[in-house]
Amino acid sequence: MQVLVLNSGSSSIKFQLFSMPEASILCSGLIERIGFEDALFNFKTNGKTITLETPILNHKDGLKLLAEHLLNKDIGIIKTSDDISIVGHRVVHGGKHFSETTEITETVKEKIRRLSSLAPLHNPANLQGIEVAEDIFPNAKQIAVFDTAFHQSIPEYAYKYAIPSKFSDEYNIRVYGFHGTSHKYVSEKAIDYLGKKESKIVTIHLGNGCSMTAVKNGKSIDHSLGFSPNTGLIMGTRSGDIDSSIIFYLAKKLNFSLDEINTLLQKESGMLGLTGFSDLRDIEEEAAKGNKSCELALQMNAYRIKKYIGSYAAILNGLDAIVFTAGIGENSQLMRRLVCEDLDFLGIAIDTQKNEIKSQEIRSIGQKDANVEILVIPTNEELEIAKQAMGLYQDKPIC
Amino acid sequence: MQVLVLNSGSSSIKFQLFSMPEASILCSGLIERIGFEDALFNFKTNGKTITLETPILNHKDGLKLLAEHLLNKDIGIIKTSDDISIVGHRVVHGGKHFSETTEITETVKEKIRRLSSLAPLHNPANLQGIEVAEDIFPNAKQIAVFDTAFHQSIPEYAYKYAIPSKFSDEYNIRVYGFHGTSHKYVSEKAIDYLGKKESKIVTIHLGNGCSMTAVKNGKSIDHSLGFSPNTGLIMGTRSGDIDSSIIFYLAKKLNFSLDEINTLLQKESGMLGLTGFSDLRDIEEEAAKGNKSCELALQMNAYRIKKYIGSYAAILNGLDAIVFTAGIGENSQLMRRLVCEDLDFLGIAIDTQKNEIKSQEIRSIGQKDANVEILVIPTNEELEIAKQAMGLYQDKPIC
Repeated sequence: MQVLVLNSGSSSIKFQLFSMPEASILCSGLIERIGFEDALFNFKTNGKTITLETPILNHKDGLKLLAEHLLNKDIGIIKTSDDISIVGHRVVHGGKHFSETTEITETVKEKIRRLSSLAPLHNPANLQGIEVAEDIFPNAKQIAVFDTAFHQSIPEYAYKYAIPSKFSDEYNIRVYGFHGTSHKYVSEKAIDYLGKKESKIVTIHLGNGCSMTAVKNGKSIDHSLGFSPNTGLIMGTRSGDIDSSIIFYLAKKLNFSLDEINTLLQKESGMLGLTGFSDLRDIEEEAAKGNKSCELALQMNAYRIKKYIGSYAAILNGLDAIVFTAGIGENSQLMRRLVCEDLDFLGIAIDTQKNEIKSQEIRSIGQKDANVEILVIPTNEELEIAKQAMGLYQDKPIC
Repeated sequence: MQVLVLNSGSSSIKFQLFSMPEASILCSGLIERIGFEDALFNFKTNGKTITLETPILNHKDGLKLLAEHLLNKDIGIIKTSDDISIVGHRVVHGGKHFSETTEITETVKEKIRRLSSLAPLHNPANLQGIEVAEDIFPNAKQIAVFDTAFHQSIPEYAYKYAIPSKFSDEYNIRVYGFHGTSHKYVSEKAIDYLGKKESKIVTIHLGNGCSMTAVKNGKSIDHSLGFSPNTGLIMGTRSGDIDSSIIFYLAKKLNFSLDEINTLLQKESGMLGLTGFSDLRDIEEEAAKGNKSCELALQMNAYRIKKYIGSYAAILNGLDAIVFTAGIGENSQLMRRLVCEDLDFLGIAIDTQKNEIKSQEIRSIGQKDANVEILVIPTNEELEIAKQAMGLYQDKPIC
């Protein structure tokens, strides 16, 4: 059975086509700069890569281009678009409605649309991907896998905010948590690696969005993103934790509108706001050249992660492993080193040589005699989405 | 030399008169419910307590009543109001202007007034206390001791928010920290107790306002209150940490005005919002009777403190002692127990019997063989203010 996984952003679509259940990748790639004349289409299959720079004016054009390549006889992946049985979509915010992977109906789409106010950068793009996929693959089952689902195990004393209870009871204001698919995937891999089901693990997902989860015996018990995907760690363009009074100050004293402040905190803050760069590779390069604001931003970023590690070690009352994952977590040896420095009190000690080894495999980069394993685990949200989407039909025939 | 210390709240004035430098207390007390017909005046001297229920319509009436008692021949504390050489005022927010204890001038008052936007619950009341004291004790030196001053040692990577740098550079948006006088006082006492200048201490100030400080070798290196006194721990009526996106949601989706949201987070949240009670003694009593929301609120409160302990243990890379202080910290054995439960990974283990002993003295309530001392240290912000106010004149004559 073929399962296409789509992760639609505002100007991009990341895709992977799996043959399931063996989880072999038939093709994968990324459509970038959607909406521009010089959009990029990147398509990998069978060791070959096709790259096109071509106008892709909207998500529909992007998915059409993908379908053309899938159907291309020379490439030979599928014969008709009906060969794809399931399209699994990453959806960021499932609110209170979706604690599980769900088949997409008109009602589900309406709920995802309504939840856009909670994830304005993500849910509208996810929805756009769904609607276009319904059009291009009309006979496939369309499935939503929610980033929030893994965090439904967070206990009430951790997911509740200290605001009047009616806001949680009537308006569903609470911690939801995000990046759940990634945290679930890497924490399961870590448990396998440790060979220890009863385990205390902190997973650190560092991509353009960044988050951390305290995982106890395989379940999320706390998480750094909250009601929205803008709390906790410092991200590419998002501030993460700030004193909420800053918002009142900006509005009352500096006459910013609420929309301006929202944009500021979501799109102009984080590493971009601190340095002028949002890509960590550029920031590391600048810091190496002596750019002070880049040095400081790297230090701030690592410092915040350290604080969350300590905080989660406390609530777990122990620590078997910390796991670095996602773009930065998997690739930035500098960020991993800065985070792990001076944490031996918690049993964390990095082996700087092992840390420098580049690999696509799960690896341990901690010192041999340290109490806490430091693992680098490549995340695979697409595979996790494919598995979960398929799981929905395990006992049912796909029609 | 006599130093009067005033801590003026919106409807209260806490006072203490010291004979310095020996730091003996000549009298102390509290004026409560200012603005009401049934205000309370409580005045202790020489083992005697005078309590009056009487109309006290404003701060001026309150301080006049205090002056009358100080000057009363039968009580015999001072002969004229000029006997008081210094009035030391607690001022909550010193912004970037005041990193040190400062003599009050018209310019200083104007700056304190301007800083009211950053501490709307506190600075206006502090200022009112200053202006009335100038009137009643016209020949005394009026000195401001700022809650923010102790935290000026927090390094840049910890005091900066991940928002565009112009906001810290031009608009001074950064972590200031509060309750500095208390954290300084108890951390110095803890260092004396440990006999260890090079020490790693976490001080936990739990009153109506609550905060924590990571103290390394006697200096504040991080703190849970930030730009304003409403971040970090859950307080009596303040939410502490929340996802800032909640503000946008309340404004955009639920049509709250910014003023309403500010009031909600400052005055209607925290333990009050969660339970309907703001006094922890009532909440503990209700929880003991089986009130579920009170049980949950206590658990949430302790959980947040645990997370900060872990976070500060990480950045200190070690822990010699944690210190409980202020009303709740000194008196609530339940809160101390809930906080210390299941933290043995960090070396924290409470001796439940020692924890139950009531005392006004510094005491250790940790298990003998635990690595981390757990101390209960009564705070004395008034004495610290008197010392600092006097310190300003140590090399100068008081005229």
